[in-house]
Amino acid sequence: MKELRRGRRSLVFPERPVLTAWASVVGNKEGEGPLGPEFDRVVEDSRFGAASWEQAETKFQQAALELTLERADPGAGEPDAVFCGDLLNQCAASSFALRDTALPVFGLYGACSTMAEALLLAGCAVNAGYAANCVAMSSSHFAAAERQYRFPLAYGGQRTPTAQWTVTGAGAVLVSAKGRGPVLCGATVGTVQDKGITDANNMGAAMAWAAYDTIRTHFDEMGCGPEDYDCIVTGDLGRLGKALVTELFAGDGVRLGGRYEDCGALIFDAGTQDVHCGGSGAGCSAAVLAAHLLPRLAVGRCRRLLFCGTGALLSPTTVQQKLSIPAICHAVAIENDP
Amino acid sequence: MKELRRGRRSLVFPERPVLTAWASVVGNKEGEGPLGPEFDRVVEDSRFGAASWEQAETKFQQAALELTLERADPGAGEPDAVFCGDLLNQCAASSFALRDTALPVFGLYGACSTMAEALLLAGCAVNAGYAANCVAMSSSHFAAAERQYRFPLAYGGQRTPTAQWTVTGAGAVLVSAKGRGPVLCGATVGTVQDKGITDANNMGAAMAWAAYDTIRTHFDEMGCGPEDYDCIVTGDLGRLGKALVTELFAGDGVRLGGRYEDCGALIFDAGTQDVHCGGSGAGCSAAVLAAHLLPRLAVGRCRRLLFCGTGALLSPTTVQQKLSIPAICHAVAIENDP
Repeated sequence: MKELRRGRRSLVFPERPVLTAWASVVGNKEGEGPLGPEFDRVVEDSRFGAASWEQAETKFQQAALELTLERADPGAGEPDAVFCGDLLNQCAASSFALRDTALPVFGLYGACSTMAEALLLAGCAVNAGYAANCVAMSSSHFAAAERQYRFPLAYGGQRTPTAQWTVTGAGAVLVSAKGRGPVLCGATVGTVQDKGITDANNMGAAMAWAAYDTIRTHFDEMGCGPEDYDCIVTGDLGRLGKALVTELFAGDGVRLGGRYEDCGALIFDAGTQDVHCGGSGAGCSAAVLAAHLLPRLAVGRCRRLLFCGTGALLSPTTVQQKLSIPAICHAVAIENDP
Repeated sequence: MKELRRGRRSLVFPERPVLTAWASVVGNKEGEGPLGPEFDRVVEDSRFGAASWEQAETKFQQAALELTLERADPGAGEPDAVFCGDLLNQCAASSFALRDTALPVFGLYGACSTMAEALLLAGCAVNAGYAANCVAMSSSHFAAAERQYRFPLAYGGQRTPTAQWTVTGAGAVLVSAKGRGPVLCGATVGTVQDKGITDANNMGAAMAWAAYDTIRTHFDEMGCGPEDYDCIVTGDLGRLGKALVTELFAGDGVRLGGRYEDCGALIFDAGTQDVHCGGSGAGCSAAVLAAHLLPRLAVGRCRRLLFCGTGALLSPTTVQQKLSIPAICHAVAIENDP
């Protein structure tokens, strides 16, 4: 049997599951950002024609799923499973998005790391032969997240300088045993990290250590370093969290350099879009992966990508109880398949 | 390569991952119920010495995990992954339970089906060779769930006849590549089912169809029937949901008979414990599995068990928006290993 593990937390995918189709559907503000032209669909109406923001988030997932399946190889058939999750309480956007389908579903909760967790588990399922095609999917919605995690929008609360702006949108990726496209070659599973940050408006700082820990472990266990990737992308630490990760690696004498990017920093223009530290939300890394990163891999503009989903595992209840913010980061290595 | 799939939703585990250790830790009311003497630990204090019910739920998970790992084969080493989730918003009980460990974590959300989803994914990981040992774990807490989903306890709201009582407790199971104990032999993945039930106090009815659909699919795809199991257990439909599943199968001319049980009906005494339709919560099926079902398999009192975790995928927000209640059921087949 081929070796499937390296060290304590890293997995390899010798069968090289292929990312054969993907799609991103986002809101207006995301469409106006630097990646605007790259999204598959920009929906002007933040309610997406639905009665509530929460139901709109469901529609963003449904649209991303539909578009992904339309683009799949017609011979592939229906997916064998969907790995998905979101930020709404009880992951309601995902459950409602899938109730009109007959697709087998694995509900996940990894906060903003969900897309990486979903890709990782879909990769395991396809590599092992449990599935021929699996969807990895995630979403978030600015207005639904604000009222759930912080204040109702109508309250008009001020945002702190370290706050991030939850992305409205969804991304979906089809992971297949056969086909053409970028391939999953390995992954490193996250552990829950908590360095005592208690400011719920500074999630970048809470997540930075988790990102450092997982990427560091990935390098150590896989016997590689930043030079083995031409793109290392965290999602979504924002500008402050990104600076902290850069600094943590600098402390080890490791320069991440220009190859290091963050989905939260990529998706909005910090100068003009009033998003403070950048984008966040489980839809942020999912949409940036599908709109920006995978197309770059597919056309060969990037050869090896380390996609590192980062999630802050707080809840409004734990914040009210003055508990610190645990965080997690899952990393997935993706190569182009020339 | 050995066949790993049957039909559209069923998986087989030819390597027969072994359930080598398990533990259950529950609250006082559960300890007073019919399964009282079977739980590993009954904690009289519903706060478990913590500052809040939510933090107590974390301690129930930690205690179940600790006890499980104490019982593991000393040569097994630390688990390679934990698959876990709970009912608190953002699955906070699980995240906080694992932040003091260095264990790789996959956060799940399947409402009360979480334990079955976790077992299923742990089985896939061990069967495929991705892990030598994985923990599947879940929890719930009556007081934390009441104030999150319904009313603060101090409000003294009346419970409807179809209501269920959320179990305070946690269960954990160690799934291993080697060792002695009951084995995982197959599973059927759930799809999201929604038959239009909108009464959040009648989750048994919402989940019954999902249970029927998954068990029916399991029989069809695996080419088996109720007679191939000497115990089929849903968790946690309660008495009403259990009656509905029995009726749905009767409509097909299939008699489930005395082999059919429900974790929510088993854990409390309906006559004396004032729990209306029975127990519920992600900790219900987890604790009943670890306290009651696995020991019966281990001593040969049951030879083949179909463990069917059922989850109602509602949130207070979706209820307020008058949406119906989607539900899911994952089934896992467990055999004793004589």
